[in-house]
Amino acid sequence: MKLYHHPLSGHSHRARLFLSLLGIDHDLVEVDLSAAANKAWHFLELNPFGQVPVLMDGDTAIADSNAILVYLARKFGKIEWFPTDPVLEAKIQRWLSVAAGEIAYGPAAARLITVFRVKFDADEVISRSHAILKLINAELARRDFIVATHPTIADVALYSYIARAPEGFVDLSCYSHVNAWLKRIESLPHFVPFKKTPVGLEKSLYVSR
Amino acid sequence: MKLYHHPLSGHSHRARLFLSLLGIDHDLVEVDLSAAANKAWHFLELNPFGQVPVLMDGDTAIADSNAILVYLARKFGKIEWFPTDPVLEAKIQRWLSVAAGEIAYGPAAARLITVFRVKFDADEVISRSHAILKLINAELARRDFIVATHPTIADVALYSYIARAPEGFVDLSCYSHVNAWLKRIESLPHFVPFKKTPVGLEKSLYVSR
Repeated sequence: MKLYHHPLSGHSHRARLFLSLLGIDHDLVEVDLSAAANKAWHFLELNPFGQVPVLMDGDTAIADSNAILVYLARKFGKIEWFPTDPVLEAKIQRWLSVAAGEIAYGPAAARLITVFRVKFDADEVISRSHAILKLINAELARRDFIVATHPTIADVALYSYIARAPEGFVDLSCYSHVNAWLKRIESLPHFVPFKKTPVGLEKSLYVSR
Repeated sequence: MKLYHHPLSGHSHRARLFLSLLGIDHDLVEVDLSAAANKAWHFLELNPFGQVPVLMDGDTAIADSNAILVYLARKFGKIEWFPTDPVLEAKIQRWLSVAAGEIAYGPAAARLITVFRVKFDADEVISRSHAILKLINAELARRDFIVATHPTIADVALYSYIARAPEGFVDLSCYSHVNAWLKRIESLPHFVPFKKTPVGLEKSLYVSR
């Protein structure tokens, strides 16, 4: 199993975190985004979207971090990570949609502005971030993990960009249930942290994009 | 089975279309968005996000259009709509992520500007729309439906906002494979169309939001 990733990509971290939580042996291959290696033809053959992460299981390429979570859970995970009961599966899907929607265009986008110098409207994406964080905080007031009393792939999908939201000037201090949940995820056996962006490094790497 | 919906919401149409394709008897309950009925407490109890659609199956409320597709497919659909093979399930998830991400913040957002007078950067969302339409067009050059030779819930998730993208000034004329696929979806037994926005109506309904 091989994971094409980038250490500053939260989408990559989701996949890496779940591989580790499941105890699956894997090689990490860093894709040099600053050299646009993700737009090279041999990478586009694996993922026409030109994005990390991509999981290779033998010759099978799985792109999209949510899709990687689904694949790993179904093929290697215990049923608790992604129950097959239709109501629970739907509830998990709701949060995978949030990860691909409100989180990607909220805290992840806010962080893209500061870390990768991407042009987004900071007010719009920061306000979208707080709207979804309020909903997540209210949900986490009711139980330890977002869908159940135990972690599922929905928690893995939400974790990375929420944990690093402050890098995009999204303040987490008033979301007490979110903060308790972050600690709960970080206490899971085989947790691997999402690297903090070293101050200044991002400029030298990405200012030309 | 009851579907809370709005006739101009593409997210609602996804759910309604799939209910119809599966031949499931259901009642439609229109939520008056112009009167903010979606923000009333009894609606927020069904969906704290305050969004249509919401599917009621007895006392169970399922919110998020992707989640509704997953629920209906697992509970009532033939396996072809949402195969359980891990590779196929992951491939379908990749496009559900696109529906919640690039489509929601691309063609759906572009249409929100014109139909619902929501403030988005038109250049940004229209350019994002064409980026994802190019990828979808390339994928549909290779097979009749987005993941397989038959339709899956990924096609249902993608259909509504692509079909009505021109309402947001996203021109579809150069995407021949997308256009052929739209016709293929529209030819499925029990297809129900996504209502075109009547010219002028949107102003009277939504100009005050």
